[in-house]
This record gives sequence, C-alpha cells and structure tokens, in this order.
Amino acid sequence: MHAEILSIGTELLMGELVDTNSSYVASELAKLGIEVRWVTKVGDDPDRLYEAIDRAFARSDVTLTSGGLGPTSDDLTRETIARVCGEEMTVQDDLLEHLKGLFAGRGFPMPETNVKQATLIPSAVAIDNPMGTAPGWWVEREGSVIVAMPGPPREIQRMWEHEVAPRLKERNAGIAIVTRNLKTFGISEGGLDEILSPLFKSENPLLGIYSKQDGIHLRAIATASTEEEASALIAPMEADVRSIIGDDAIWGEDDETPESKSVALLRDEGLTLGVVEAFTGGLLCNNLTEVEGSGDVLNGGAIAGSADALVRLGVNADSIEEHGIASAALAKELAKVARVRFGADVGIGISPLALESADGSVVAGTSFIGYAMDGRADSTSGHYPTRRLRIRGRAVTHALLGMIRFVREMPLEAVRPRR
Amino acid sequence: MHAEILSIGTELLMGELVDTNSSYVASELAKLGIEVRWVTKVGDDPDRLYEAIDRAFARSDVTLTSGGLGPTSDDLTRETIARVCGEEMTVQDDLLEHLKGLFAGRGFPMPETNVKQATLIPSAVAIDNPMGTAPGWWVEREGSVIVAMPGPPREIQRMWEHEVAPRLKERNAGIAIVTRNLKTFGISEGGLDEILSPLFKSENPLLGIYSKQDGIHLRAIATASTEEEASALIAPMEADVRSIIGDDAIWGEDDETPESKSVALLRDEGLTLGVVEAFTGGLLCNNLTEVEGSGDVLNGGAIAGSADALVRLGVNADSIEEHGIASAALAKELAKVARVRFGADVGIGISPLALESADGSVVAGTSFIGYAMDGRADSTSGHYPTRRLRIRGRAVTHALLGMIRFVREMPLEAVRPRR
Repeated sequence: MHAEILSIGTELLMGELVDTNSSYVASELAKLGIEVRWVTKVGDDPDRLYEAIDRAFARSDVTLTSGGLGPTSDDLTRETIARVCGEEMTVQDDLLEHLKGLFAGRGFPMPETNVKQATLIPSAVAIDNPMGTAPGWWVEREGSVIVAMPGPPREIQRMWEHEVAPRLKERNAGIAIVTRNLKTFGISEGGLDEILSPLFKSENPLLGIYSKQDGIHLRAIATASTEEEASALIAPMEADVRSIIGDDAIWGEDDETPESKSVALLRDEGLTLGVVEAFTGGLLCNNLTEVEGSGDVLNGGAIAGSADALVRLGVNADSIEEHGIASAALAKELAKVARVRFGADVGIGISPLALESADGSVVAGTSFIGYAMDGRADSTSGHYPTRRLRIRGRAVTHALLGMIRFVREMPLEAVRPRR
Repeated sequence: MHAEILSIGTELLMGELVDTNSSYVASELAKLGIEVRWVTKVGDDPDRLYEAIDRAFARSDVTLTSGGLGPTSDDLTRETIARVCGEEMTVQDDLLEHLKGLFAGRGFPMPETNVKQATLIPSAVAIDNPMGTAPGWWVEREGSVIVAMPGPPREIQRMWEHEVAPRLKERNAGIAIVTRNLKTFGISEGGLDEILSPLFKSENPLLGIYSKQDGIHLRAIATASTEEEASALIAPMEADVRSIIGDDAIWGEDDETPESKSVALLRDEGLTLGVVEAFTGGLLCNNLTEVEGSGDVLNGGAIAGSADALVRLGVNADSIEEHGIASAALAKELAKVARVRFGADVGIGISPLALESADGSVVAGTSFIGYAMDGRADSTSGHYPTRRLRIRGRAVTHALLGMIRFVREMPLEAVRPRR
C-alpha cells in the first residue's frame, strides 16, 4: 500500500510556517508499513488544489490531506474532493446539530459560514474531531481512499491516533512493522560497523547504523504479518547486538533522550543534581526541565559567563588565576561549587569557551565539562566553534551522556560530541 | 514569475528528516517577489523523480530542486534533468580538475563515483559550491529554468545567497518587494484594527495585522519596480502607523526579537542583568545567550524550582512562608535577590507555577514575574498551563517584553502572553 500526503494552505508556500504535519503523518505511515511516495504542498487555489487532489486520487492507494477544512471561503478541501468525485455536498443534520452544540457551549451562535463543516458527499463518512469544529472526511471510491484532516497540529494528531491510524492499520492488515533503536556511546561508528558486520547481512530484521548528535544509533526494523511475529524477529537481533557490544555501550533505547535518561538515572539512584553552566548559558537546565519529574532531581542551576560571576558563585579566584577560566581543573571546581551551592549529590560544571592557549595545547572554542560526587571528580572536553543553539545543544548532550558515565563510574573520554 | 520547489530524497518521505530547505527557499523567493505555487517532496525513485521534474519544468517558470547531487547511485537529480531535456551528460574537464583538487586537499584520491559531479548537459551551466563537492546546475530551456541545488542546508544556503538569488533577481528585474514589520505591545489586536482602519484600505503598500507570541505585528508590504520606489511607498505608511499608535507601543522592528531588543536596551542604557528563574528553568538565560553581545549585559542567572533552593539562593524563608512561593511579592523578591546575587543593575525573577489558591484569586498554572532596579520593583503575571517548551517560551517573551517596559518605566499590565 502506498500513500501520498497533501499539505494545503497558501501560508505553507510562503515559507513562514514550517509544515510539521507532513513529517508527522509520514513517520506515522512508516510505522504502519505504508510507503509514502509523494508529499505535496499546495495553496488555497481552486484549480491547483483540484489538480493536486485529482492526481493523488488517481495514482495513490491512500491520500492524506491536512488543512483547508475551516469555515472560510479560502478553505476548499471539501469542495475540491467533491469536484474530483463528481458528487454533491449536502448538509448532514446530525453533524449540524453537533456543530451548533459546540458553539452553544462557547456561548455564541454558530456563524452561517460554518455550515459547510457539517456537509458530506455520498462517498464520504465523517471523522470525529474532538479538538475542533471541523470533522474529517474518509472518502472511499474505486479502491482508493482520501482522508481529509484538519491543519492544526493538535487536531490532526488526535484524529490520527484515535481515528485514522486504526482504520488504515485494518486496511493494511497483514503487514506489521516493529522497530528497535539502541543508542550507543563509547564505540566509534567504524568500530561498530566492524564488530557487527555479520548482523548487517540480515534482511529481516534489517539493521541500520546512524550517526546522530547523541551517539551512534543501531536500528533494527522487522516486517511480519503481525506485531508479535515482527517483535519475535527483532528479539534475537537485539540480544546479538547487546552481547557483541556490551550493555555498557548502550545508554538508551527508542525514544529515550540524554535528558530523559539522566533524570531516570538520578531518580533510580536517589541522587540530586546541581549545575553551573557557562558556555551553555542555561540550556542544560532548560532541557532537563522539559522532562517529566526533573523537579525531583534537579536541585538548581546557575548561569555565569565571566570570572566575576563565577567568583560570586563561590569559585576560588586563585584557582581561576592559576588554571584559567576554561580548563579541566576549573570545570571540576565548577562541578564542586554546583554540588555545594545547590546542596546536591552530583555536580556538573561547564566552563566558558577557551581561547587558544599559548602553547597550542588548548584550541580556541574548547569547553571543559566537569563532574563531582562525594569524594571524586572527573572532566571531559569538547570543541564548540560557535555559541549557536545547535552547537550548545551538542555540548549539553555531551555533558549529560558524560554524567551518565561518570555516575556509573565508566571512563569519560569515549564520549565525544558529534556534528 | 512563479516557482516550484522540489525536495529530493527518500529520507524526506520517511518523516525522519524535516525538510527545512523548502521553507528556506520559499521565504527567500517571497522576498524576490516570486510566487511559489507548488512544493513537492519526492524520493530517489527514477520514474517518480522524472514525473516530478518533467511536470515542474512544463508548468512553472522556475523550478528549484534540492538534494540528489551526491556521488552515489541514489543521487539522480542530474540524470533525471538530462532525461527530461533529452540531452547527454558529459564530463567537463575544468569541473573534474576542480573536484580532484578538492579531494587532493583532503589528502585522498577522488573516488570514481564522484566523476558525475563534474558533468553538465548542453543546456546547463555549473553553479559554484564552495561548501561541498557538488556544483549546482542552472538549466535554461524554452524560457523555463531549473536550478538544481545540493541538499545540505549550509551548502544550499551559501549557493542561494551568492549565486542563485542574484541571478533570479536579475531575471525577475522590474519587481521589487519591500516589507516593514512593526512589533507592538500594549494595544490589543482589536484596538489596533480599529485605530488603524483607514490604513488597511491601502493596496500598495498593503498593511497586515498578525497576532504572534511576541505581540501584534503590523506588516507593510510594498511592490514597485525598484527597491528604492518600494521603500518610498513604505515610508509614509510607517510614519502614519507610528503617529497613530505612538512609538511607545512599538517594541521592535523586522527581525528584532524580545531577546535581541532586551540586550540592545540594556547595552544602550549601560545596565547589567541578573535573573532567577523557577518556572522557566533556564530558558530565559538560554535565549539571551543566543544573542550576540549578551555576555556584556547578562551578569548571571540561577535556576531554582523549590522553596529550599530559593532559600539557598538568598530568598527570605519567612517571606516564602508569608506570601507563598508563587506570588507577586515573591517574584519581586526573586528579582531583588537576582540583582544582589549577580551584582546587576536590573533583576528579573520568575516564580514557580502557582497552585489554585483557596479563595480562587490565583488560578493554578499562574507564574509571577518580578522586576527590580535601584529603588523600585514591579510585577506582572501570566497563565501557563504546562511546562512544555513552547509554553515556557511564552513566559520568557512575556518576561522580556515586561522588562523592556519596566526599564522604560511604562505600565506592565498591558503586556500579556499570547497563545
């Protein structure tokens, strides 16, 4: 079964709004084992929209549209599907009743323009949209399907999960795809490629190797007629990978992130964290804050970029003088200050960026990352050419994966940031 | 002149990689006054790629492709353009020489597969790519143009700026578009709509009103045959807007952000900033860090979510007891602590999220934002239903726009966060 995605709306063609719906739907279709062949963005122009929907309906098993279901005269998805099918739109009493109820609940009468949100054509059935006023359309004709979904992300995502994905899954019955993603650190891509080479020959499950910011990912994809069978194909592959590279080289699985894994590790070990960030400017704490439950483990953080600010936090002015503001020794001291200042079990300190050292031993743009726990401290370093968000994000990943290793008493030098 | 964008690569159809190139090119084309009619993503499949390029060439004045210029057998953009044009690809000596030079510079010989990056067809000229090995192609036939550009964002962006945009601008000579965006605070969308209503009747420049997270934007777009003429059309419109709403209601222009504006204001006034963030978890400092020159004005920041952590920073335990951790009084105290702790002129304090108060006067999810300077303090508050990044981003915008007003001694209550 192959699919086509149409994102509808002139604003998508202006480059002002990034179309996240098509990526969302594409990755969801991949999980169902449905191949996406085309993604098209088209504006609210009747003729071009007709051309796009007509072509998609003719060439694709399933066409998924997002947008153009609003009440205004610019919202043309329903009208265009009706035109492609050569069918008449008629108002449905039950949909109209429901729609009027929604407006009544908000305390004002339904504008006349919204009536078209209560229409169907004979080949369409309505798809429930509890997050908005526009129901979707499921249109089936001559073996092809068009699914018209609303544009707002929270509406399309709810509709996809509860209504569209289950129906497509049923339609694509007999094909189940299961993936397993193991996220590694400490072994290079080349090294993994070599030691896992026998496994790369397998066709089902298929094992892929991907170099990502948070390390090398090993992803197994199995296809079978049921989810259970696909999972059963994955399991021995995962066991093989784990026995070859060792569990210590795997920091996370599937949707886990360095942030979620760090919070889980600290929580499981009953440890709290204090942070002093110079180069990363608050990004590490910000990213941890995004994780559910981080409040229980993150005691606090401080952002300080200058020597003065570090001294005010409690860093010894003499040690800045002695080691320089960007050095392994200072990063460890920042970590110790972070522990003390925030009464935490584990401290992370991220130094400012180094300038080139006189003897060339430190390269400009190096940041040192220090860790401290009761009785021990360690550090690592990375090269960060700019202060841009993406680059600082790399340093945060580095700092957190390093912390996971530090807490587990594993060597640090193996974790290096990647482009 | 109207354009079509093709993003090429199977990985774009898997939803794993968000296609940022098409948004980039679309917004750049808008600046040149070139209308984008279609954006299509297509995989590395020879027949579907042929279908897409053939159709684009036939229906669009300019077709811009990204991706598929690499050396592997999956990279089919050149081959497909040649097939659409019915022309033969031949290796160009000068391109080959240049390519071999690039590899020599990296210290290894050029793999044989890269030779196709040195080819052209008779209708194509090469476009210089200083960021990578693949030159672009500029193909002109029967009045239509195909521009083939590489996929990596830094390569396409460099090529666009230095090579493609100037040529397209020349081709679209006689049409210049100038926009001016005024970013406001303190007056509601409805209020602006009413007081500016005579200006909305103008067709050139066209004045639009947009509700954004950082306030209501007023955007004037003028079209003329030269940039000077378009700017001359914009100037009186801008003067009218300014005289009607007052300069005090405008916090920024064009690409300015609450962050860049805050740093500029503090720098211009010779002021430094200290921050204590609870709810926002480091996001405010992180966002400021992204701005060039922020190091000169941001003395430091602290992240503390719990009462204990706040007391450790120097907040009076009695005042937490008296006012509650989420209150206007505490937010002002946090701002004062931020000033003292970081030796700064201006302090910002963002409280944790409030729980519902017994008498209902405080709604669950309220965060209080306090400001302090020598001798005065003030506060505002906003409602933030979750800790998700987007919601915390709204609080940061609110806090910074509030700071701009506080430093300028303007009333705070007019700045409210928007969805």
